Amino acid sequence: MATIQDIGVSAAINILSAVIFLLAFAFLRLQPINDRVYFPKWYLKEDELISHAGLDSAVYLRIYLTGLKIFVPITILAFLVLVPVNWTNDTLEGLKVEHSDIDKLSISNIPFGSKRFIAHLTMAYVFTFWTCYVLLREYEIVATMRLRFLASEKRRPDQFTVLVRNIPPDPDESIGELAEHFFLVNHPDHYLTHQVVYNANKLANLVKEKKKMQNWLDFYQLKYERNASKRPTVKTGFLGCFGSKVDAVEHYTSEIERIEKEEAEEREKIVKDPKLVVPAAFVSFRSRWGAAVCAQTQQTSNPTVWLTEWAPEPRDVYWDNLSIPIVHLTVRRLIIAVAFFFLNFFYVIPIAFVQSLANIEGIEKAVPFLKPIIEMPAIKSFIQGFLPGIALKIFLILLPSILMFMSKVEGLTSVSSLERRSASKYYIFLFFNVFLASIIAGSALEQLQTYLHQSANQIPRTIGVAIPMKATFFITYVMVDGWAGVAGEILRLKPLVIFHLKNFFLVKTEKDREEAMDPGSIGFDSNEPQIQLYFLLGLVYAVVTPFLLPFILVFFVLAYVVYRHQIINVYNQEYESAAAFWPSVHGRIITALIVSQLLFLGLLSTKGAGQSTPVLLVLPVVTFYFHKYCKNRYEPAFVEYPLQEAMRKDTLERAREPGFDLKTYLASAYIHPVFKGEDDEKFSMMDEGEADQVLVATKRQSRRNTPVPSRNNGSEAPSMPEIVNDQRL
Amino acid sequence: MATIQDIGVSAAINILSAVIFLLAFAFLRLQPINDRVYFPKWYLKEDELISHAGLDSAVYLRIYLTGLKIFVPITILAFLVLVPVNWTNDTLEGLKVEHSDIDKLSISNIPFGSKRFIAHLTMAYVFTFWTCYVLLREYEIVATMRLRFLASEKRRPDQFTVLVRNIPPDPDESIGELAEHFFLVNHPDHYLTHQVVYNANKLANLVKEKKKMQNWLDFYQLKYERNASKRPTVKTGFLGCFGSKVDAVEHYTSEIERIEKEEAEEREKIVKDPKLVVPAAFVSFRSRWGAAVCAQTQQTSNPTVWLTEWAPEPRDVYWDNLSIPIVHLTVRRLIIAVAFFFLNFFYVIPIAFVQSLANIEGIEKAVPFLKPIIEMPAIKSFIQGFLPGIALKIFLILLPSILMFMSKVEGLTSVSSLERRSASKYYIFLFFNVFLASIIAGSALEQLQTYLHQSANQIPRTIGVAIPMKATFFITYVMVDGWAGVAGEILRLKPLVIFHLKNFFLVKTEKDREEAMDPGSIGFDSNEPQIQLYFLLGLVYAVVTPFLLPFILVFFVLAYVVYRHQIINVYNQEYESAAAFWPSVHGRIITALIVSQLLFLGLLSTKGAGQSTPVLLVLPVVTFYFHKYCKNRYEPAFVEYPLQEAMRKDTLERAREPGFDLKTYLASAYIHPVFKGEDDEKFSMMDEGEADQVLVATKRQSRRNTPVPSRNNGSEAPSMPEIVNDQRL
Repeated sequence: MATIQDIGVSAAINILSAVIFLLAFAFLRLQPINDRVYFPKWYLKEDELISHAGLDSAVYLRIYLTGLKIFVPITILAFLVLVPVNWTNDTLEGLKVEHSDIDKLSISNIPFGSKRFIAHLTMAYVFTFWTCYVLLREYEIVATMRLRFLASEKRRPDQFTVLVRNIPPDPDESIGELAEHFFLVNHPDHYLTHQVVYNANKLANLVKEKKKMQNWLDFYQLKYERNASKRPTVKTGFLGCFGSKVDAVEHYTSEIERIEKEEAEEREKIVKDPKLVVPAAFVSFRSRWGAAVCAQTQQTSNPTVWLTEWAPEPRDVYWDNLSIPIVHLTVRRLIIAVAFFFLNFFYVIPIAFVQSLANIEGIEKAVPFLKPIIEMPAIKSFIQGFLPGIALKIFLILLPSILMFMSKVEGLTSVSSLERRSASKYYIFLFFNVFLASIIAGSALEQLQTYLHQSANQIPRTIGVAIPMKATFFITYVMVDGWAGVAGEILRLKPLVIFHLKNFFLVKTEKDREEAMDPGSIGFDSNEPQIQLYFLLGLVYAVVTPFLLPFILVFFVLAYVVYRHQIINVYNQEYESAAAFWPSVHGRIITALIVSQLLFLGLLSTKGAGQSTPVLLVLPVVTFYFHKYCKNRYEPAFVEYPLQEAMRKDTLERAREPGFDLKTYLASAYIHPVFKGEDDEKFSMMDEGEADQVLVATKRQSRRNTPVPSRNNGSEAPSMPEIVNDQRL
Repeated sequence: MATIQDIGVSAAINILSAVIFLLAFAFLRLQPINDRVYFPKWYLKEDELISHAGLDSAVYLRIYLTGLKIFVPITILAFLVLVPVNWTNDTLEGLKVEHSDIDKLSISNIPFGSKRFIAHLTMAYVFTFWTCYVLLREYEIVATMRLRFLASEKRRPDQFTVLVRNIPPDPDESIGELAEHFFLVNHPDHYLTHQVVYNANKLANLVKEKKKMQNWLDFYQLKYERNASKRPTVKTGFLGCFGSKVDAVEHYTSEIERIEKEEAEEREKIVKDPKLVVPAAFVSFRSRWGAAVCAQTQQTSNPTVWLTEWAPEPRDVYWDNLSIPIVHLTVRRLIIAVAFFFLNFFYVIPIAFVQSLANIEGIEKAVPFLKPIIEMPAIKSFIQGFLPGIALKIFLILLPSILMFMSKVEGLTSVSSLERRSASKYYIFLFFNVFLASIIAGSALEQLQTYLHQSANQIPRTIGVAIPMKATFFITYVMVDGWAGVAGEILRLKPLVIFHLKNFFLVKTEKDREEAMDPGSIGFDSNEPQIQLYFLLGLVYAVVTPFLLPFILVFFVLAYVVYRHQIINVYNQEYESAAAFWPSVHGRIITALIVSQLLFLGLLSTKGAGQSTPVLLVLPVVTFYFHKYCKNRYEPAFVEYPLQEAMRKDTLERAREPGFDLKTYLASAYIHPVFKGEDDEKFSMMDEGEADQVLVATKRQSRRNTPVPSRNNGSEAPSMPEIVNDQRL
């Protein structure tokens, strides 16, 4: 069992590594060569920086703030009330069991059947009501922010557009004609236009190849310009190492011509061949009201055809899944549910294996000759404080991509919903394989057996009893994952290494460099569940071992500061869902709250305070109904689009721009990316903003990082850093 | 333990009672005086009889047919395969334990760890797939019936009307003005008119009182006409027994005048006093399309105000609940959930008490002096075969009204949804308190403790093991409740007695007689869960004790014949929900299927066939996903109203009747019953049908039993009986 000294060593190590990372950052960011890693956004003009953040990012940062709002008062109360109540006992000393000072501060130090448990009971109630109060207020605030954001938005194609799936085949009409006739008949006053969806995988490959060739051509042309005396040559065989030598510029020019020809054929084929038309379409309406009506209603008596839903933003569309028929979805979900079940319960085997190695006895058993070294106090503290946490962390790196793949198989049609789905899977995984596996410490099968073989009221007891004992483990985990991890995030070690490697070996042209410096998005699917783990730990340990709370608080402060910096300076937004993820964030905090209540109930029933069970059982029931209330009250704001809002915006717009040509505006909004030019490939929404951008373009203008123009009017975006380093290269 | 002889005696008793009831029916129905009990519908003309049944009743009968479709092939298969497999063992004889021949036919006769369990496993798969297949087909058929029914319906007010609840208060406008302005702005092309809802409880009481007085007046006038020599008198005091004697006709005439005056004042007050206006309204649209759009969309950004849903049929509206604010609903549901939990688990105490009395040992212990009588073979058989079943039955009579009260507190706004909600509660109750309580045979608390203290895989084992032993009990239960109960239903003993009592003591006028002969509706809320109990028993015992299946089959045949007769000849429809209850019927059969699979799994794991667990675990998972598939595929047909259908009917109707005055048609459709005349109080939909009806009215025309005109065009209604007994009085 780790003592306060062990914890101290671990804290020191982690603080040290955090400091080293921060120092390294402070040094490296001064090197102009690293600019493109640390300040990609400083290559843009200032007001675009604000627009970059968007509502999603602002609300993402609110998750950390919510953590602070929940845990600051809880920590203060716990230290004022529970710590003295726990400390002024001598149960552990009386028992003469091995214990650390942390245990003296925890509920373990209260004697069996003591009246003092009333303090913990009361605090459980206070903490629950405080958490619910904060959650309610945050839900209210975020819902308001979302509605204000949606109301203040400029015209966007997805406001007028509905995604229609499973258009039933008709022998006499093409998908496009069918869609047009159907909506002309059933929405006669509102239907405007539609865009069929093509299966353009082959074309996408051709476009990709052409781009590669173009890149090589640019490279050799640049080379030739620099050294005009020698025309560059290239070998036509495998990897450019074999075959006959030819003139590079000519070779690539002819290659590009060939592909362009193929591409043109393929384009023609796609438009002509009805088999390449997916039975889905983006249908646009004359007004937001018409689109809102179509998206929220059932079209035909067969609920598996003509399925309508809001179209995602054009850049948010996940094109590959548009053609999946609805009858397949049930089967796909069944398969993924079973696969995820196995992943969840059998993935734990390697973790448990590594964890069993990563304790003193395990290592000594595995490599007996290391015993003298391991027994040295400094190294022993290091192993006990550091290794179990990092072992877990390494295992978790691979996981998000697997989960994202699973979500894609399930057939969701937008990137944002894919990320949300992956996030819930990841949370379930963390819950069983980090939280519970660390507490009951068993292999997957053992753990599963525990759940199956123990009774409904024995399970919380088994887990509850082990909770106080695992406090030190989770403290080290919070430090490794929360403190050092977050500090590592700001250093961006992996992107740093990869960027310089790419820059050295792969970057041939300006466009390559832009691709290499693409920072990606914040990764909601893997980051949010990790924050949720801290909510879970905080809520579970608030009553049991309040000593853990300050560590959680430090995490929330540090993470808030770091991610605020990253969101302003580094990450790009891939889509804007207007905080559509908040209901799941809320739901998972509620889950954590109910879990903490059940485990506390289980713990108390083993401490001779069984008569408190009915009092405690009230909490999960009330919390559950609180959740139901919140769901009824606020969730529709994240799912539906009210007709009143739609009508208001329609009326305003009609008054302001009576002659606006909506049809032209929408004509190419939902075209598959390959049908567009290369430049706007990633951001397909260059509408009004494009003009300004061209006028004020600076030297550091980057096509890749130029996003959609601001859509939150700066109201919610974090403020800009004051530094404008124009002196840099 | 009951032997085959016991069962035989019980069967004899029940068959005998069934025969007696049927004979009594055959005799009593010949007495013209009973006509109004047995043939109230023969007082109507023939084509109205078909319209009487409606889709709800037709689909209700399909539940029995579904039972037959599921269980006839299962019974045949089970007797061909499982009975020989079970019978050709001698485990029970070898064990020398007490057993009956029924046990020899059941799975108990298979030795521990035998290979023969493969037969049962295979059959479990076959039965599951067959049940799912039948369910799928039935869902498909019922959904088609519903859609055809809705499509062929005549114009109805609820097709154009949406119920709007939680209209937010406005200091400057009345609820009516507010509703009009809101829908004029947000549905400008579709809004037609609206009807505010008044809190008319006081007025309803006055109307009721006036009706009573009118009735007395009729009575005394009749009396006076018969015997003109003596003017009838009445005492004005308590119950007409005390006080001064006055002329009855004059007294009641003046009373009616007084009430009429009060009523007029109250009517005026309701219209003028804004406090008596409930914040809800029935909003009608120009087209079905407009109403469908409004009912299925969210109106404002605050999802707790301006809530829209399809208006129920006018006669289906449950007026008392229209004023409940949505924020109360969560609290009300929490309270009812807790109350129902306690009702469910503590109501079992008296049942268990009676059951413990209703066995030989219990009775001998309670009343030792009866021992010699009880030990007589005939009486012993009678007690063992008959009493446990009937004790339960008596306890269950009171329950539906309690559950209906609970559902009303939950705040549902239509009678049909109230009945559906009560039905699910009743099913849960039957599941725990009849099915499980009879199997594990423990008091409420004991049972609850079992669930809490046993592990997730121990519970199915505990219950599964007891299942074969309880087969005889359930056979007697099926006979008492299913056979004799259904035969009792056709005799209508209770209504028979009550009608004649009322006729003798209470009936004063023609209207009284009509009220006395009102047969009521079929009572979905209490009847459907009882059928579901037979599905559950059949599916659970199909693999375990196939001997029970024929008893279930007899029940389904008998019940189908009897209820078909009753629906044609006796019951009135109170509302037409177009089979909206089918999703719950389907869902409960699926529940029964999954329960049967889990219990069989538990049973097998105690019989040395634990290695079959993974094979069996596949079944509930697949069944669950089958349910999800059905839900996606068919449930929307029972919840939503597709726009295509709406548009089709709108277009047709506009072409047929271009000048129809919809506004006048809808003007008084959703007026509180008390604002209407007395005659159409119950059926507020006298539209086109009224005219025909007046033209062909016969002598036996009854105001009370004249329903809405046919709305299913005779396509699904059961055929009419051929007998037209015109020779009757």
